[in-house]
Amino acid sequence: MEARCRWAGWKERLCSAEQAAALIENGMTVGMSGFTRAGEAKEVPRALAERARQDPLSITLMTGASLGNDLDKLLTDAKVLSRRMPFQVDATLRRAINAGEVMFIDQHLSETVELLRNRQLAEIDVAVVEACAITEEGGIVPTTSVGNSASYAILADKVIIELNLDAPAELEGLHDIYIPQMRPTRPPIPVVAPDSRIGTPYIPIDPGKIAAIVVTHGKDSPSTLLPPDADTRRIADHLIEFFADEVSIGRLTPSLLPLQAGIGTMANAVMSGLAEGPFDHLTMYSEVLQDSTFDLLDAGKLDFASGCSITLTEARGKRVWGNLDAYRDRLVLRPQELSNHPGIVRRLGIIAINTALEMDIYGNVNSTHVGGTRMMNGIGGSGDFARNAQLSIFVTKSVAKEGDLSSVVPFASHVDHTEHDVDVVVTEHGLADLRGLAPRERAARLIDQCADSRYRPALRRYFEHACQRGGHTPHCLEEAFSWHIAAERDGHMRRFQTEDAGARRGEHREEPPVAHPA
Amino acid sequence: MEARCRWAGWKERLCSAEQAAALIENGMTVGMSGFTRAGEAKEVPRALAERARQDPLSITLMTGASLGNDLDKLLTDAKVLSRRMPFQVDATLRRAINAGEVMFIDQHLSETVELLRNRQLAEIDVAVVEACAITEEGGIVPTTSVGNSASYAILADKVIIELNLDAPAELEGLHDIYIPQMRPTRPPIPVVAPDSRIGTPYIPIDPGKIAAIVVTHGKDSPSTLLPPDADTRRIADHLIEFFADEVSIGRLTPSLLPLQAGIGTMANAVMSGLAEGPFDHLTMYSEVLQDSTFDLLDAGKLDFASGCSITLTEARGKRVWGNLDAYRDRLVLRPQELSNHPGIVRRLGIIAINTALEMDIYGNVNSTHVGGTRMMNGIGGSGDFARNAQLSIFVTKSVAKEGDLSSVVPFASHVDHTEHDVDVVVTEHGLADLRGLAPRERAARLIDQCADSRYRPALRRYFEHACQRGGHTPHCLEEAFSWHIAAERDGHMRRFQTEDAGARRGEHREEPPVAHPA
Repeated sequence: MEARCRWAGWKERLCSAEQAAALIENGMTVGMSGFTRAGEAKEVPRALAERARQDPLSITLMTGASLGNDLDKLLTDAKVLSRRMPFQVDATLRRAINAGEVMFIDQHLSETVELLRNRQLAEIDVAVVEACAITEEGGIVPTTSVGNSASYAILADKVIIELNLDAPAELEGLHDIYIPQMRPTRPPIPVVAPDSRIGTPYIPIDPGKIAAIVVTHGKDSPSTLLPPDADTRRIADHLIEFFADEVSIGRLTPSLLPLQAGIGTMANAVMSGLAEGPFDHLTMYSEVLQDSTFDLLDAGKLDFASGCSITLTEARGKRVWGNLDAYRDRLVLRPQELSNHPGIVRRLGIIAINTALEMDIYGNVNSTHVGGTRMMNGIGGSGDFARNAQLSIFVTKSVAKEGDLSSVVPFASHVDHTEHDVDVVVTEHGLADLRGLAPRERAARLIDQCADSRYRPALRRYFEHACQRGGHTPHCLEEAFSWHIAAERDGHMRRFQTEDAGARRGEHREEPPVAHPA
Repeated sequence: MEARCRWAGWKERLCSAEQAAALIENGMTVGMSGFTRAGEAKEVPRALAERARQDPLSITLMTGASLGNDLDKLLTDAKVLSRRMPFQVDATLRRAINAGEVMFIDQHLSETVELLRNRQLAEIDVAVVEACAITEEGGIVPTTSVGNSASYAILADKVIIELNLDAPAELEGLHDIYIPQMRPTRPPIPVVAPDSRIGTPYIPIDPGKIAAIVVTHGKDSPSTLLPPDADTRRIADHLIEFFADEVSIGRLTPSLLPLQAGIGTMANAVMSGLAEGPFDHLTMYSEVLQDSTFDLLDAGKLDFASGCSITLTEARGKRVWGNLDAYRDRLVLRPQELSNHPGIVRRLGIIAINTALEMDIYGNVNSTHVGGTRMMNGIGGSGDFARNAQLSIFVTKSVAKEGDLSSVVPFASHVDHTEHDVDVVVTEHGLADLRGLAPRERAARLIDQCADSRYRPALRRYFEHACQRGGHTPHCLEEAFSWHIAAERDGHMRRFQTEDAGARRGEHREEPPVAHPA
């Protein structure tokens, strides 16, 4: 314990999770650690949910990103959450958000603490941060994520530390904590490469603010990556072929550019695929580091990875967490404000690979809203990266629900990324390089290269019909959402499928859209 | 002449506009100076259009932004333009773009030269740049805009200089030319305040590339700012009251933050209005400097203004161009890549004020497409600023066409700025501070504060009906575009107006949308 908690004052602050949770009062704004289900405070939120069942209270909860260990579910079920930001992935919380019961503020993940620092959001009353150690001066050494923990702890009135004795002590030294100065007199943030170290390996706070230390045990929820299926492998293959081509014409070098990849099975598969290509001395400047990062490190393909969290499957975790020293000099974890910083993303010239939920024929991307209304997870860091990347790539399977839904639609039912921020689109059918193209050219290429062949004729008909009407970005607004309306009513878009491109021509135009589906 | 052209080799390169234009061949990519109708090369494009009437040719034309002196019209009429980027404002070119005759690539204005430098766009064959002087080493001193001229000249195979003897010689010294280094090893760009000077007062090029020097005369087209009407004045008043409130609660200081304002009458009026408020020692870090910049400088309210072009009315021009020395130490013109740089905008904590064409009830903004399809001008720098600003404000009148069209609609027919990038919305009716709100809260506030009272009941009905269906961002996709469809068919949205909130309840839902209006 003394090795983990080197701050002299710890004994006076030691308490149970219940006692610590009692510091959180009804109506407070609470900032908690946790990013992509890594490094979240585990026991205090659990105790808070428990208490709320007897003694109702509601709070604004801010985190880095998603919490593991079903905490968002527990807190939602206990009706603790009145407001939640900036990201989540929990099914129960998602239902509450979509029912209008929890006010969810979906934010670019680099922005939350900028807003807090300028007092554009409610001030943090209590921060709850998981630590693997506390330094002599009361500095907090985070565990598997940094997320927004540093700014939350620095800005909060009171800080609760969950000292997790199951977190590897070897995590210490992995973090690089730097807080940008106040604007408008902020000097440049000195990150100039993925391996730049510009701060301290702990979160420096006034130890007088440490209101409670709770000793915990317990692990992050393992990541639920699936092995890549055939379509995912095809997407990775298209992308790797594209990168190889860019190298061969001299537009990229074999070390490419610092890589960012979103979270999930598809992004993981794409990254893993890079081990196969003619690439070397790769680097990552990303948000979350998944299994693929360690695959590439092990393969000797990746020189360095910068992120703000590490989220691994159970199998991968076993090989990493007990063996951290092998990776130590090739990893850094930063605050998400820095891992996702627009200025740094622009400076480094990142290749950004993010996942689309759907996209329209012009390449406007919906990353968040099913059917234009129901929040899935949140925009996360995709906007931080896609807008400022040197090369912004979006990947998606061309269809969902075994072909019943097309991911390429006439008009995106929600726009998170405009066509300006989408350079390249990849599905299992192919890759559409949209750089330097006008909308009409983008549409022709995107439909031909990326849409599923069953939906291609109907998309072409929509596009041709729209072009007859004219416009820089031609559309027929009466039909623009007909695909989504059908999906909502029928559960599928099969009426827009064509076996023979001629057979069903125009059919979807003859039936007027149905108002008010149940 | 010797004072203007100090480079020894000039005599051998001196030629007519026709001779210079002959250097431009069919199929070439040409980069020209010019930004918001300031500082464009004037004679060579005119000669090119003239020649094309006899001897057809077509080119890709890149500029900083819009050209004056009807050049885009002349070039369009002469069918010279096959591709055009990244911005325009000409009625004739707009028609050609919307007819699909000119491929227009609408870009964030900070990005064009990044893409060029990485060879993600076709390489520049010829650059044509207006200059007020040529230095001893062959460096180009631009005139009233920098735009993309520096990178075009540096990247081009051949450079044509239009030496405009009518441009004030006193422009020399106003410019600050800095070209960011190649990525991924780019050091931080050292701009840390609006008055940072980090480069040279001329565009440094290899003089061996100077293929032609054309001596010209002629002025920029004057800006066509209108005096503010009552609604515009109300918008300015709401905004000034908001800023004063932010100062009084200590969230801003009386010098606010570096200000950016879009182009046009409304942005100009808002900026001018700041002369009336309790503000002092203001600064601007903007794209275009309009009359209001000089009003504020003259009023002693503005300490410094950084931009990439100066666009003035005829009356203002008379008082500025002959009197530049009075402003010299309070002005700088930079490449648009720097004036709009995401990293610098984020670093300085800019207050960005941009104009919306329409917005939806959740605050997603359409800046570009009339009826979702027809390009107006382009996204310009609005995305560079709005995404990265400390405070992103969009202004618009609540109605257009004397009330026949509502600027607040259920669903934006095109999205340039997502709700994440829109903090505050202002119309003549009021100001909606949307910071920290979830979409349902944003909608309630935006409808109440900003929509015209005639359209408010129908917007509320749409919103309430959508909320009954649920979702994080509730919508009824069947009705989402009904306002635009009515406008397209009838030329107005009057069917969504209500005198009495109860009288017409639900009317617009009973009539199904009409397919295929003529």
